[in-house]
This record gives sequence, C-alpha cells and structure tokens, in this order.
Amino acid sequence: MKLDHIGIATFQLADSLSIWRDALGLEIDATEELAEQGVRIAMLRLGETHVELLEPLTSDSPVGKFLAKRGPGIHHVAVQVEDIRASLAELSKKGARLIDSEPRVGAAGCLVAFIHPSSGNGVLLELVQRPSFI
Amino acid sequence: MKLDHIGIATFQLADSLSIWRDALGLEIDATEELAEQGVRIAMLRLGETHVELLEPLTSDSPVGKFLAKRGPGIHHVAVQVEDIRASLAELSKKGARLIDSEPRVGAAGCLVAFIHPSSGNGVLLELVQRPSFI
Repeated sequence: MKLDHIGIATFQLADSLSIWRDALGLEIDATEELAEQGVRIAMLRLGETHVELLEPLTSDSPVGKFLAKRGPGIHHVAVQVEDIRASLAELSKKGARLIDSEPRVGAAGCLVAFIHPSSGNGVLLELVQRPSFI
Repeated sequence: MKLDHIGIATFQLADSLSIWRDALGLEIDATEELAEQGVRIAMLRLGETHVELLEPLTSDSPVGKFLAKRGPGIHHVAVQVEDIRASLAELSKKGARLIDSEPRVGAAGCLVAFIHPSSGNGVLLELVQRPSFI
C-alpha cells in the first residue's frame, strides 16, 4: 500500500503554492477542475506521493464548508489500493462508515471513495485506485 | 525531497491502530516515547513514507493541547531534507516563522524542526534530517 496524496484545503491555490512550490521547491504535476466535487486542484510531486492543493469553486462545496469551519489546513489522506471495490467491501465488513459505498471518478481519472472521519479516528480517509492501462 | 511522515494525533494509540494497522493492514515499524516532546509514538510504514501516531503523555503537552482543542486528526506533515540547518536558513530568509530556529533530536535520532502553521497556510510543517552513518 502506498500513500497516494495528502489533500490540503486552501482558499486560493496561490496561498499554498507560495509554500509548497515557492518556498519548498516542489513542482506542479497537474492542475484540474473537478466540477462535480466543487474543487480546483493542483498536484505537486513529493517523492512517490503528492501534495494535492484544493481550492473550492463555491463556498457550499465540501471543501468550502471545511474552510468556513476550520480554516485552511490538511483536509484528507489518500491511500492507493489495487481493487477499490474489494477494499470498500472489506472496510465495510469491519464496521467502517463509508461516505461513498460506490467509487466515483476523481482526479486524473482515478476511482476514489471516502471513508467518514468517524471511522478514521478524526481523519478523513480517501481510497484511490489508479487507472490501469491494459 | 520526500515525505517523511504524516503525524496523526490520537488520545490513545489503540484508537488509531485499529484503523491503520487492523483495518488497512499497515505494520508498526517502531514505537518510541519522546519525553521531551511529551508523546508516545508508533510509526507505521506506508510505501516510502510513514504514518506517525502521536499519543500525548500529558494533557498540557503540545499534542495534548491540540487534542483538547481540535480532537483527534492529522496534526502535521513532515518532509525530509538533506541539510536541515540550510533549509531552516532558506525558509527564514523567505519570511517563514520558525517554531524551532535550531533543530532538535526527534524520533529515531533524526534532527527535526517545526515551521509555524501561520507560515504553512494552516499546515504545521516539520523538517526532518535523517541521521547519516558515515
């Protein structure tokens, strides 16, 4: 299992880019707008993992609400799994509360699903299955 | 640059181990008590990085205060640097507010230093220099 990325919520991408890109020297791998999830993202490579910066498109999106409540900061942790449906079934069997019982399409065409922080001891956990090119 | 670890605050290590070890299958690499920082930690390997679980030894330690204010959740993000003093000097020159202007000894004999969340757009950032064995 690998860490896919750390998701960081910010009012403006530029506010976080000034740290991760300009001060620490990370490079932007990709930027993307995910209308369905109400966010604009920038992915910066950090070794084998990524920092995902999340700017809300609207204040009533999940990230917009997070920012209103807690301010900018770490929003979630995403781990890579090989078979997201199998992982969801396994976690559900162990009693985890799933936000997404069915995976949906996230950044870079990945299948993603979130586990509720009440099952993550306060951590919002995302599962990511990278697209396979057979 | 690599992600050294994600630090997660928890009232009891067992509360977080039930997710990261028991549900997700990560293995504990090491446990350690850092009296100076008032924490007991468990390090779990996740690809090339680690999840660091932090249980406070006292309620008035930094992690104890974080838990009282925000509850369990992601506490900090730690990146590996080669020369921590050079990185601190560079960040300071760029205007970052350092919690530790001089590195101190952290888990596994690493040199560590924290950057204030006000300079991390809400993220508490830790720099880690792994011990070199020359």
